[in-house]
Amino acid sequence: MPIAATRFRFAVTLILPLAALLTPFEVRGDEGLWPLNQPPTEIFRDKYQFTPGEAWYQKVQRSCVRLGRGGSASLVSRNGLVLTNHHVVSDQLRKLSTPERDLLTDGFLAADPSQELRCQDLDAYVLLGIRDVTAEVNASVTADLTPAAANEARRKKIAELEAQRPDDSSIHSNVVTLYRGAAYHLYRYRRYTDVRLVWAPELRAASFGGDVDNFEYPRYALDAALLRLYDENGAPLHTRDFFQLNLEGVGENEFVMVLGNPSRTQRGLTVDHLRFLRDVEYPAVLGSLWRREVQLRTICERGPEQERLFRSELLGVQNSRKAVSGYLATLQDPRIIASKVEDEAKLRQGVAGNPQWQAQWGDAWDRLTNALAAYRGFFARQNLLNGRGAALDSRLFRIARHLVRYAAEREKPDAERLEEYREAELEPLKLRLFSPAPIEDDVEIEDLASGMALLIERLGGDDPLVVQVLDGRPPRERAAELVRGCGLKDVETRKRLFDGGAAAVAASQDPMIRLATLVDPEARKFRKRYEDEFESVERDAYAQIAAAQFAVFGRQRPPDASGSLRLSFGTVCGVTEGGRTVPAFTQIGGLFERSAQFGGTPPFDLAPSWQRAQSALDRTVPFDFVLTAEAIGGNSGSPVINRAGELVGLVFDINVPALGWNVVYTDQVARSVALDVRALHAALTHVYHADALVAELTRELPE
Amino acid sequence: MPIAATRFRFAVTLILPLAALLTPFEVRGDEGLWPLNQPPTEIFRDKYQFTPGEAWYQKVQRSCVRLGRGGSASLVSRNGLVLTNHHVVSDQLRKLSTPERDLLTDGFLAADPSQELRCQDLDAYVLLGIRDVTAEVNASVTADLTPAAANEARRKKIAELEAQRPDDSSIHSNVVTLYRGAAYHLYRYRRYTDVRLVWAPELRAASFGGDVDNFEYPRYALDAALLRLYDENGAPLHTRDFFQLNLEGVGENEFVMVLGNPSRTQRGLTVDHLRFLRDVEYPAVLGSLWRREVQLRTICERGPEQERLFRSELLGVQNSRKAVSGYLATLQDPRIIASKVEDEAKLRQGVAGNPQWQAQWGDAWDRLTNALAAYRGFFARQNLLNGRGAALDSRLFRIARHLVRYAAEREKPDAERLEEYREAELEPLKLRLFSPAPIEDDVEIEDLASGMALLIERLGGDDPLVVQVLDGRPPRERAAELVRGCGLKDVETRKRLFDGGAAAVAASQDPMIRLATLVDPEARKFRKRYEDEFESVERDAYAQIAAAQFAVFGRQRPPDASGSLRLSFGTVCGVTEGGRTVPAFTQIGGLFERSAQFGGTPPFDLAPSWQRAQSALDRTVPFDFVLTAEAIGGNSGSPVINRAGELVGLVFDINVPALGWNVVYTDQVARSVALDVRALHAALTHVYHADALVAELTRELPE
Repeated sequence: MPIAATRFRFAVTLILPLAALLTPFEVRGDEGLWPLNQPPTEIFRDKYQFTPGEAWYQKVQRSCVRLGRGGSASLVSRNGLVLTNHHVVSDQLRKLSTPERDLLTDGFLAADPSQELRCQDLDAYVLLGIRDVTAEVNASVTADLTPAAANEARRKKIAELEAQRPDDSSIHSNVVTLYRGAAYHLYRYRRYTDVRLVWAPELRAASFGGDVDNFEYPRYALDAALLRLYDENGAPLHTRDFFQLNLEGVGENEFVMVLGNPSRTQRGLTVDHLRFLRDVEYPAVLGSLWRREVQLRTICERGPEQERLFRSELLGVQNSRKAVSGYLATLQDPRIIASKVEDEAKLRQGVAGNPQWQAQWGDAWDRLTNALAAYRGFFARQNLLNGRGAALDSRLFRIARHLVRYAAEREKPDAERLEEYREAELEPLKLRLFSPAPIEDDVEIEDLASGMALLIERLGGDDPLVVQVLDGRPPRERAAELVRGCGLKDVETRKRLFDGGAAAVAASQDPMIRLATLVDPEARKFRKRYEDEFESVERDAYAQIAAAQFAVFGRQRPPDASGSLRLSFGTVCGVTEGGRTVPAFTQIGGLFERSAQFGGTPPFDLAPSWQRAQSALDRTVPFDFVLTAEAIGGNSGSPVINRAGELVGLVFDINVPALGWNVVYTDQVARSVALDVRALHAALTHVYHADALVAELTRELPE
Repeated sequence: MPIAATRFRFAVTLILPLAALLTPFEVRGDEGLWPLNQPPTEIFRDKYQFTPGEAWYQKVQRSCVRLGRGGSASLVSRNGLVLTNHHVVSDQLRKLSTPERDLLTDGFLAADPSQELRCQDLDAYVLLGIRDVTAEVNASVTADLTPAAANEARRKKIAELEAQRPDDSSIHSNVVTLYRGAAYHLYRYRRYTDVRLVWAPELRAASFGGDVDNFEYPRYALDAALLRLYDENGAPLHTRDFFQLNLEGVGENEFVMVLGNPSRTQRGLTVDHLRFLRDVEYPAVLGSLWRREVQLRTICERGPEQERLFRSELLGVQNSRKAVSGYLATLQDPRIIASKVEDEAKLRQGVAGNPQWQAQWGDAWDRLTNALAAYRGFFARQNLLNGRGAALDSRLFRIARHLVRYAAEREKPDAERLEEYREAELEPLKLRLFSPAPIEDDVEIEDLASGMALLIERLGGDDPLVVQVLDGRPPRERAAELVRGCGLKDVETRKRLFDGGAAAVAASQDPMIRLATLVDPEARKFRKRYEDEFESVERDAYAQIAAAQFAVFGRQRPPDASGSLRLSFGTVCGVTEGGRTVPAFTQIGGLFERSAQFGGTPPFDLAPSWQRAQSALDRTVPFDFVLTAEAIGGNSGSPVINRAGELVGLVFDINVPALGWNVVYTDQVARSVALDVRALHAALTHVYHADALVAELTRELPE
């Protein structure tokens, strides 16, 4: 999914009293998504009297799991059990479903390990180590290079670094860019490709309250699922590193930490960059999301089979829409922008006060502003062809494009390829490309027809590319013809074309291969423009701004999130807003009350299993809770742990004010939302009768 | 509502096999929305052996009713009973509802005339006569005038013509533009301001199947309501002109006619004008509709009170979204455009073949193309400030803007005013402006906040107008401040400002008056640009193209719809598509079957009254039916009559292929959808027990 990492969730109301709190370039309260090799040691020590050693960090790091390209998760048993959010694996649940067995609606519990269902295209990553490679990356850049050439040199060096690995195909390396270009760190992971579904509740239990309660608190959602990692021999992974559940849970005001893979924050952006998001990028992204939400909702309403096929896509779109609405609303507050203007002015004054600094870094802001102005000119086309809003985005089209592109890229030296086709990336790519997950014609036709119509809407019906794509037919008719005639639904055909290279692809008469071949030159052209005209300047300018910040203020913020493992921290803490106090914890009894309030109608309907279990459940058991530790899209599935490294909760959301964290941290009313381990335990015991799992999760095991 | 006339209703699938049928400038099959002074006499005679006399047309014309600014309806009893669609009056039902009495959910039946509820701001119009004033309008234009000046001269002349009326305040005159400028006809109406609600079914009965079944067939919707016109003495209107119900109904293949006020079709547009709709106008309109639909839907889901407040706005938005989606899908078919290109080339060749024609009309197409190119440059801003997509569109803002504008316009001679403030328009304006319908703060804040956010999204947060509108606050906070501080919720305050004129408005500290004053100069500037740079050329060019068409082909199409009374005709006729035959009629039994198919869940839930009546109803009674007679937005509520001028049905929808009628007529699969009078009769009798109404509707009365 183009926006898969944006998993958090809306805002009818978003009045953020943030502006008053802003002071430039200081870490505020419990701010920060910290890399594990750059932990907030002083804050831990001074504010929380917490001084974990190297071993503590090692164990925590190796207990964390990244799922696929974006989800967070953690190991929770010595037998490879992995805890994450239901919504992180909902797409896998859809792929494992059939018209007869709808895992989203009915949930799933493996009676024993032999019944666990292997996910068709999900891999899992455990971080082994981090190495700072900034100097190596920057050594490849000489002073005489243009920004585009410098960017190219950096990319090549990064490809080289990622390709250096022991002869172990399960090791995966990735260079993480920090501060948008000031630092480069090499992350080395162990990758697991045999990931099986162990337990998932019913969708209505996992996302109780649906879109209405999404990004809200109080909440009563059991947004959890259990997977298991298997080793290369097909045996459950044995590990010493995992988070033991602490069934005492956590108390109000207690210190906790959150670990996960937040995808992207925008806190360090220049004012003009924020304006670009406000006026160009977010409106374009939201426009596509609103459009798609309406289309998908009207399809889902047509009947249960349509709902089964399209619901998962709809849930993803709704979630992204709520998140981006919140990000945009924050930037639409003139006071937020005003405070950023003030911060930036202070920094630039500081730089201007020192002639050497001014000479070194003084033009970084203007260079970025100019690059943004250039990018505005081709953003729409770039976004439609390559970006988050890519128009042609059906599963078959993506497969065809990978085959077409890989056939061209494999001819090049590794370091010169598009990054997703480098040797280091091929195994993850093949997992997705050769996924046996069923491809439904109806879904493909709908996705492709919608995308083609979007191309007409945004580029105009007489645009040469649009005319070629449609080939004289209206979008739906053209899409039907492409999908019905496409042989890529067969995995063996994909493998043949993948292995056959450029000659096989050029000879293929598959209509989807032909379409991808048709579109590719223009898509590549705009990707190149983006990299040369914008990204290269961006990296360079932000590296300078980060240096300036350190020079002027003597310290740096923690880096913006960029998809790698981060630690955040804070306390469990309720919210008082407008005289109304919302306590930190909800209780299981509240679920039944809220459902009754709405007469049990969707999205407030109870799953039958919960109706049956009602009398067996202790209504006072804590259900969900809120905390001040930061989270953002990609943090879904993050474990909440205590000082002892024990699991006390599972982050699955943030509240509406916390969407403002994208650009500025505050702990006044912004909160992350987590599931309490005590509710998970009660549900597994009394609702799902998963006795073996409960035993596995709660056994105190000798090291 | 900015799009109120677009009342028809979507298309997941829209493959129109139209292109094959096109031949240039001939009326095809049962094509045409004919003005009553230009009926299709030859077709009636030759194809249907139907030769109605002047008296027949007179009676039909005086039995038709226009509701407010856009809805269709008809008189159906000698005591002023008026039949229309439920969805045409749903906004009135909302205004008459309270938290305790929800007329949309529960429906309404007046036990006797004394219980009928006066609509708060609805007027009704009966057409008395039509006069061709083309020569008079064009006489005001001399050859030396620029297009803008010519347009101005025409507008002044039109204002003069509309102001000429007997000393009878119930007479309302309106000059209708035909062929977008080739002809001007003066329509004279009697206007009724005391319109009362007599009966309305429950929303779930009226729009059974909701958005899913909207624009689909087969259907089972009782989309009807009854009103009554009262005279100036508060007595029910006595009239000899009305449509008598024929309870024999109509048979398959029978000839029928439809009368109503279709708002706008685009069949006569040049190819470049259609491209403008496809690439600029429709995508912009749809973008706003998708956005608003998602926003309103998420609000409605928050609880029953929110649903009561916002449901009616949501239904309107969904309906427009489905309609515009269909219009756009038609234009996104390259074959439709290709056929239009061919038609246009033939006409232009014909013109080019005659040097005099070429000199007179040859440059009309290019002039229009140039005007469209200019309009593209300011469409976004014009549309946001004045158009269908107007951003600031809350009820209080509209009131404030009327007060601000009227204060300025009243100072000018009548013929120089903005047309909605001419003397002839003041009474209808005052009806709406001084409506006592409650104004809810929550709705106002939501509408205004959404509109302000839209301004930022489309114009950017640093646009000077946007900065002034927000005044330093985020949209929702600013909207709350404006609405809470606004005194215009009080009708007397509005009257004071209306009567007080420019001085009173200038002195007012009401925040909404100040906002409207702030925005008005820019809004007027763009309206003027639109009129001078586009509309003036448009009128002139289409007048020339119409003349060329007549010269080259010897005949004209019927004029595109433009909001005035039109007659269309055709036969009752099922559809065969892709081997599947859908019969012309559904039956009452089908309603219960379709509801059961969906387990009775919304929007397929039955109203309690229908559940109770199930056994009393004859399941074989025809429910809805389809016909080949044209209809389009604005036709909702149109009577379907037979040769004898008897009522046999009530148009409430068209099917998806018929949305293509906007640009080209076909009767292959495109159909209008109507309620059968026999279902109306059965429902009033057995479901609503409205015995007095049934008697009134079915009594054979002496002339």
